[in-house]
Amino acid sequence: MVERWGVYEIVLTGPSSGNPFTDVEVQAIFSYRNRDVTVDGFYDGGGRYKIRFSPDQEGSWRYRTVSPTTELNGHRGDFEVGPAGAGNHGPVRVFGRSLFRYADGSRHESYGTTCYHWTHTGDLDHEELTLASLAESPFNKVRMCILPTQDMRPDRLAFVGSTAETLDRTRFNLEFFSHLEDRIGDLGRLGVEADLILFHPYDKGHWGVDNMSPELDRFYLRYVVARLAAFRNVWWSISNEYDFNHAKTVADWDDLLLYLQRIDPYRRLASIHNGTRMYEYESIYDFDKPWTTHQSIQHWDAARAEDWRARYPRPVVIDEIGYEGDVDRRWGNLTGREMTRRFWHGMAAGGFVGHGECYVDNPNGHWISRGGRLIGDSPQRIAFLRSIIDEAPADWTDTADYRLIYFGERVPAEHFLELGDEDHLIDVIDTWQMTVEPVPGRHRGRCTVPLGRSDLALRVRRVRRRTDATNKVREVA
Amino acid sequence: MVERWGVYEIVLTGPSSGNPFTDVEVQAIFSYRNRDVTVDGFYDGGGRYKIRFSPDQEGSWRYRTVSPTTELNGHRGDFEVGPAGAGNHGPVRVFGRSLFRYADGSRHESYGTTCYHWTHTGDLDHEELTLASLAESPFNKVRMCILPTQDMRPDRLAFVGSTAETLDRTRFNLEFFSHLEDRIGDLGRLGVEADLILFHPYDKGHWGVDNMSPELDRFYLRYVVARLAAFRNVWWSISNEYDFNHAKTVADWDDLLLYLQRIDPYRRLASIHNGTRMYEYESIYDFDKPWTTHQSIQHWDAARAEDWRARYPRPVVIDEIGYEGDVDRRWGNLTGREMTRRFWHGMAAGGFVGHGECYVDNPNGHWISRGGRLIGDSPQRIAFLRSIIDEAPADWTDTADYRLIYFGERVPAEHFLELGDEDHLIDVIDTWQMTVEPVPGRHRGRCTVPLGRSDLALRVRRVRRRTDATNKVREVA
Repeated sequence: MVERWGVYEIVLTGPSSGNPFTDVEVQAIFSYRNRDVTVDGFYDGGGRYKIRFSPDQEGSWRYRTVSPTTELNGHRGDFEVGPAGAGNHGPVRVFGRSLFRYADGSRHESYGTTCYHWTHTGDLDHEELTLASLAESPFNKVRMCILPTQDMRPDRLAFVGSTAETLDRTRFNLEFFSHLEDRIGDLGRLGVEADLILFHPYDKGHWGVDNMSPELDRFYLRYVVARLAAFRNVWWSISNEYDFNHAKTVADWDDLLLYLQRIDPYRRLASIHNGTRMYEYESIYDFDKPWTTHQSIQHWDAARAEDWRARYPRPVVIDEIGYEGDVDRRWGNLTGREMTRRFWHGMAAGGFVGHGECYVDNPNGHWISRGGRLIGDSPQRIAFLRSIIDEAPADWTDTADYRLIYFGERVPAEHFLELGDEDHLIDVIDTWQMTVEPVPGRHRGRCTVPLGRSDLALRVRRVRRRTDATNKVREVA
Repeated sequence: MVERWGVYEIVLTGPSSGNPFTDVEVQAIFSYRNRDVTVDGFYDGGGRYKIRFSPDQEGSWRYRTVSPTTELNGHRGDFEVGPAGAGNHGPVRVFGRSLFRYADGSRHESYGTTCYHWTHTGDLDHEELTLASLAESPFNKVRMCILPTQDMRPDRLAFVGSTAETLDRTRFNLEFFSHLEDRIGDLGRLGVEADLILFHPYDKGHWGVDNMSPELDRFYLRYVVARLAAFRNVWWSISNEYDFNHAKTVADWDDLLLYLQRIDPYRRLASIHNGTRMYEYESIYDFDKPWTTHQSIQHWDAARAEDWRARYPRPVVIDEIGYEGDVDRRWGNLTGREMTRRFWHGMAAGGFVGHGECYVDNPNGHWISRGGRLIGDSPQRIAFLRSIIDEAPADWTDTADYRLIYFGERVPAEHFLELGDEDHLIDVIDTWQMTVEPVPGRHRGRCTVPLGRSDLALRVRRVRRRTDATNKVREVA
């Protein structure tokens, strides 16, 4: 029995001659009561065809396959879907205007990090180290690429062939995908979303995978979606720094995102990530377009999340805000303190911030490129921030019962609050020292809290009197 | 003999009955060879009318007065204008696209500060303290208001009357203006520009001076210009935070700026200062409009100066970028370090940044409101920055011979430079410790400079070989 939001897989036998990737097509129609979901299959080598499906409801499902290839056509079956297992909350969805929730309704705030090519190193020990680092980190999303950069010479590429000359972009490397999906599964078990970057502009003509024809782009997307969309922790990022790719226009990206939406039976979270400095809205993608689910933004000014939230009815994920480290690139030499501040600024403004790290002398290499081990100062502070938000009401950005006032680099001697005529609890949070110090007593009316050092936040919680089931008055904050 | 860019004043006797401010008009036409300049006179009480003129050329000038009032009409005279005295470089003008110069061609980079109502305290000792503080500061411009805020109860207002009820907005308080022009003169002697804020939105209906009729606005402007425009250190800021004034539209401000340009014989520097957070260009005033000479911007992100420079052919003056201090307002609790960083970011991006200070426990009160004594950490660092820029070529933002690379809060372990095949001198500047440490030797080609702490800048100067008059080869950096 497959669990809800798990993966059910049909394996069929069919042709292995010619180029099955291009020549053979198979789909399955999965049905629950009177609802049909059509899912593409994919060729997995040796005459094997797989159709992967992630059911979103418990109960009896049935399927039938459809293919112009006789051997693959007309297979039927049924299966039972049981409850989600422990730790399986389903895929992340957009909730309301600018929040996320798991499909089971439980909370999800996004704490992303970036390991662009952690699955391309060819070093399994290193990949295990990355997974262990993620497991003990606060991060629950990783941005990661499928395609290589011009400088990489990985053992395996998404396509068959190991050099630019021999690369056959009409055939997929099955070991590559098998490995990639294992890693996506590993992330899923850790509760980490795989924010898959489908294209990026770092090829510069070397592999020829950033300027393919629309047909090849779709061919690639369709295979990726058929193989990977069933993993409930998959997000789609159609491109990193899309505007740095001079071979494609915004209209091209629109076409690809629309295509992606059409072939993805689950409508996984999907977005597109800008590269330019984006001082102005002109250089943000228009996230009103219905094929994006959230705003994936590169910008250093997290506090602007508030404006982006106002502008588009989509959650704001600042997937690149600068990286902690000391490399000689403008984007890669934030102190841990500055990285931490940007997380707090972003969360306080109702956005979600992404982390990255690149220290010159990290013996495991740059985290942003290949994962490994985190050595920076910010992850533990981001974990602390996460513990604070975890304790906050789920609508922490929009309720008067709870306020998080973040001062960051600003150092007021004190902060004045007008609390009205209900009792409040106030805590001074040192976001760098990771302490929470209650201001003794309960507070109402006009109230001044001494501050006077940097990296502080105030948490203000209204104490509500509630009558519980036993008619006792309880106070909750 | 009056000096070039000095003030020549004609005093005439005329009517003192009725309301001479509204009833009497007098102008003088000043002529140099075949050039005429028409200048408004103003009533200065006791039947005295003055016409103030600042000649911009040495040599023989003549004048004749024009007035419908017989006693004031047809006066003629001539006078000689001599060379500018020591320290008199003339008014500041726009130079090229985004720089300033004094009228005599000497350099002027703007280092502004803010003392909104330093001339309204009624405390002359305090005003002298302010002047002394300015004299030893790096600042060469002060933003200052003419009109009071709702909360102030100054001894003297620009208009006659001391309460909101008795204020007569058709008569000017002569003591107020006499005092104000003394202070403008004091600033001029210190080499400090008086950036006069003509309107502001902080009246909230109390004095009734932020929502006057267009006629009263013009009446007020005309008097101010007639009295003060002759001071060569006057700049006009038509309004502070103009967009917070709900009684006026952008079209109203356009009208007033156009009017100002028309009545100001010298076309002093003129701009308008925004209040909104100005995330987007939409909320910047359109500085292409010909009646503005420079962009007067409120924004916290100094590095954007580069974009604003690109956008409008006007110098960028970030007149509000947050203030050093510890007050409980978002704009008023920067550390000295952060204030310093914003100055460096702005200058490195080719903009000019304004300072302000407001410490709760400054016994002399808030510098931004009433002047007094500076106690912050940034002024001495801004002086250090000024000393660096003073040594730079005048076109420091646009020459390949000189580069200032500022890292601010970023901490790269090292910085790579590609210097080409000419020798360069490199200095590591610690903008906080105020040290300049040369990287020994001369540098060309590929070069890596160790950094590794915050608040550093690199100065890179090309060494050019020149042949001097004696045919000796000299090297200059």
